[in-house]
Amino acid sequence: MEKTLEKKQLIKKSEDFSKWYVDVILKSGLADYAPVKGCQVFRPYGFAIWENIQRVLDEKIKKAGVKNAYFPLFIPEKFLKKEKEHVKGFSPELAVVTIGGGKKLKEKLVVRPTSETVIYEMYKKWIKSWRDLPLLINQWCNVVRWEKRSRLFLRTTEFLWQEAHTVHETHEEAIEEVMRALKMYVDFYRDFLAIDGIFGKKSESEKFPGAEKTYTYEMLMPDGKALQGCTSHDLGQNFAKPFGIRFVGRDGKEKIPWQTCWGFSTRSIGALIMVHGDDSGLIIPPKIAPIQIIIIPIFQGKPSDRILEKKVKTLKSILKDFKVKVDFRQEYSVGWKFNEWELKGVPLRIEIGQKEVKENKATLVRRDNGEKYSVPLVALVSETKKTLDSIQKNLLEKSSKYLKENTREVFDYKEFQDIMKRNRGFLKVFWCEDPKCEEKIKAETKATNRVLPLNALKEKGKCIYCGKKATHRWIFAQAY
Amino acid sequence: MEKTLEKKQLIKKSEDFSKWYVDVILKSGLADYAPVKGCQVFRPYGFAIWENIQRVLDEKIKKAGVKNAYFPLFIPEKFLKKEKEHVKGFSPELAVVTIGGGKKLKEKLVVRPTSETVIYEMYKKWIKSWRDLPLLINQWCNVVRWEKRSRLFLRTTEFLWQEAHTVHETHEEAIEEVMRALKMYVDFYRDFLAIDGIFGKKSESEKFPGAEKTYTYEMLMPDGKALQGCTSHDLGQNFAKPFGIRFVGRDGKEKIPWQTCWGFSTRSIGALIMVHGDDSGLIIPPKIAPIQIIIIPIFQGKPSDRILEKKVKTLKSILKDFKVKVDFRQEYSVGWKFNEWELKGVPLRIEIGQKEVKENKATLVRRDNGEKYSVPLVALVSETKKTLDSIQKNLLEKSSKYLKENTREVFDYKEFQDIMKRNRGFLKVFWCEDPKCEEKIKAETKATNRVLPLNALKEKGKCIYCGKKATHRWIFAQAY
Repeated sequence: MEKTLEKKQLIKKSEDFSKWYVDVILKSGLADYAPVKGCQVFRPYGFAIWENIQRVLDEKIKKAGVKNAYFPLFIPEKFLKKEKEHVKGFSPELAVVTIGGGKKLKEKLVVRPTSETVIYEMYKKWIKSWRDLPLLINQWCNVVRWEKRSRLFLRTTEFLWQEAHTVHETHEEAIEEVMRALKMYVDFYRDFLAIDGIFGKKSESEKFPGAEKTYTYEMLMPDGKALQGCTSHDLGQNFAKPFGIRFVGRDGKEKIPWQTCWGFSTRSIGALIMVHGDDSGLIIPPKIAPIQIIIIPIFQGKPSDRILEKKVKTLKSILKDFKVKVDFRQEYSVGWKFNEWELKGVPLRIEIGQKEVKENKATLVRRDNGEKYSVPLVALVSETKKTLDSIQKNLLEKSSKYLKENTREVFDYKEFQDIMKRNRGFLKVFWCEDPKCEEKIKAETKATNRVLPLNALKEKGKCIYCGKKATHRWIFAQAY
Repeated sequence: MEKTLEKKQLIKKSEDFSKWYVDVILKSGLADYAPVKGCQVFRPYGFAIWENIQRVLDEKIKKAGVKNAYFPLFIPEKFLKKEKEHVKGFSPELAVVTIGGGKKLKEKLVVRPTSETVIYEMYKKWIKSWRDLPLLINQWCNVVRWEKRSRLFLRTTEFLWQEAHTVHETHEEAIEEVMRALKMYVDFYRDFLAIDGIFGKKSESEKFPGAEKTYTYEMLMPDGKALQGCTSHDLGQNFAKPFGIRFVGRDGKEKIPWQTCWGFSTRSIGALIMVHGDDSGLIIPPKIAPIQIIIIPIFQGKPSDRILEKKVKTLKSILKDFKVKVDFRQEYSVGWKFNEWELKGVPLRIEIGQKEVKENKATLVRRDNGEKYSVPLVALVSETKKTLDSIQKNLLEKSSKYLKENTREVFDYKEFQDIMKRNRGFLKVFWCEDPKCEEKIKAETKATNRVLPLNALKEKGKCIYCGKKATHRWIFAQAY
């Protein structure tokens, strides 16, 4: 048999999660290693997921009155230096252009790791009056952060994202925008990517370099490690001041505006892969799947069965409102096809053969739980819709269950250490908010402070590390 | 009056075309100069045009079976050197990253000027059998070509485009793809951007570095200079050979595949601006306009006329299938608004005031010819549709007329030289196909060989420059 026709053998998720992750990405055709160190190629199947994510998020972004624009890839080095925390945070990760048009450049250009500085230089020029506010702009683009150790989707030197940058008259308005964006991301993760998580505020040491406050959505991966899903930053006036952004207020006086920025990246696809996949491959939530239904005609030795072929075409037209693909290829066996589309995580398979044609039925097979049942063609559309909805719901429920079972309240540092050595997960603990305790916990357990849940109550407690007074329970975990 | 409330005075297109071009872009808010030399910022209004272009083209591309993917921004320098014509063509324009993560890189990375080399390195890996062909992949991305003299939209160091790269079993199939893509672009320019032009083959000296043949759409700008609108390349086996792309054919033998690539960039927006704009500003064809209709309520001294306000909202909901914006702002005068939306090139203005409310009518004003007429609300949808169609058609007709009037058949080199000194335009001339004549014509008249029209007949003629035998009439022009 030719090599391309061999069944693709996948490393089992249950046996080696880390190897499975890379294996499933490469074999399902989501992505490939680029010939440039630390970079990846988004293959059509993987990029189609990103396009679906973009379509949904872009619509939400536009509905909120935020407009898309495009700012340059290159940032003069001096801009980056204007906000001192910002440059400190990003300096170690920069790719720098020093030659242009065959000549050594007088001023080095940084390939954007994020675009605050180049965007705010423009905002300074564009904003004059309160009439120009709020200024709400987003861009979808590539960014570059030099990575020593890369991991497909999760940590690559170049990645794709959207970054929105908004400017407001008041701090209240800016905070409202930060929360609106955070909620948009949380809803998107739950409703579309079917991944439950915990959202809230980052600690001072974990926040974005230059931000006043950073908010995020933290998810738990099957190996018990956390993945940060997005960020929404209250920038206060930290950038507006050094960048000289000013506006004439309603009272005629010059004022300093308040800023936010928020972003969502292709990292989210990494979460999707890890959370839902199984030993057979990917499982893509129906709402975001490039292919929702794969129809596989079962020819039983007759490779040119006209009746069956016609039936399949009818089926496809009945299901026109779904994303359907028919695998008509005759050079591959039915078994090979089952394996292939399971690997690719298509949520629903429809089989149709002689038997189904005779009985005017189709056989549906769910990717998430393997359930198989026969549906009369007259009920196919409604049953398909119901099944896809059920798969979407089931994936979120599974994720919620896992999150719940692996979020533990811990009051004892010994227990904290033990869990971090064993099965990890989220630990909800009192912390005194002293960065030194955070540092020591990290050094001793590899766990970092992930987030203070937004709904966290003020309580009376003792810091899990130093025993001093603590008022809130924070989430700690080892993180990607 | 505050500065932002002053009417924006535009340089007249009829008086200084070149200055008008920059002025109209900056004042209408399409784009701005970036703080990085040679780069531009796409402001929301300008980017919205690009998004509309993308939406239409992307649908056409997908319908043709081409799938989107994403390849890395950085290309190892050695890849670029694999095809010798290619590297020769692009070397002078490269931006080069020499520092990554704070360290000097062992191998320099080129910021992609185009992605043949990095994509074909992947294709070599992915293509094994005839079953993997045709491979049809496109990407929307940013590219960088170092420019000494930049011009907004037309020639910037960074620009946005789509580049598709296809691989085929046979040369015939590849040529078919090249022609399909060319036709797609031509149709798009005519049907959506309303710009007529001439399509055909590039001469040997003007073709893409590494291509077998290059096809293009050449348009004529109002100053009589040509603008190349797109390219579709037959790459033959020129890249497949050095990149080692091979496949096992249907006969079991190893073969070299045939490749094409084709691209369309943000340059097209430059053409749109130049071709349609007038002394009052932009004129954007309805099919591509971010705002098709601007509704301006005329409050006549009563800034809070509830009846009028309600009517305007009704109007907006009646016109929900169009891209409508209402300018409710009360801090700007009606005159200021008229001026502003004319500058921004919104194809249709609807005015509604006391009189219109009373008579249940609306006043329509066309941006392309200034025609103004009253329409009963019951007929508003159909009249609006008709008017927008008519504007779209009128813009193309104007463009066709200009193209026709400025495409001249010339048989005498003296006349050629005179025209190039005067009003320029397209010159249709016999050329012997010797690059030396091309070179001399260019040196003496600044006119370059633009294109051999696809429908050009074989004739008997004499080269306009050297008088030797020539079989075809080529288009020459000064170009952007």
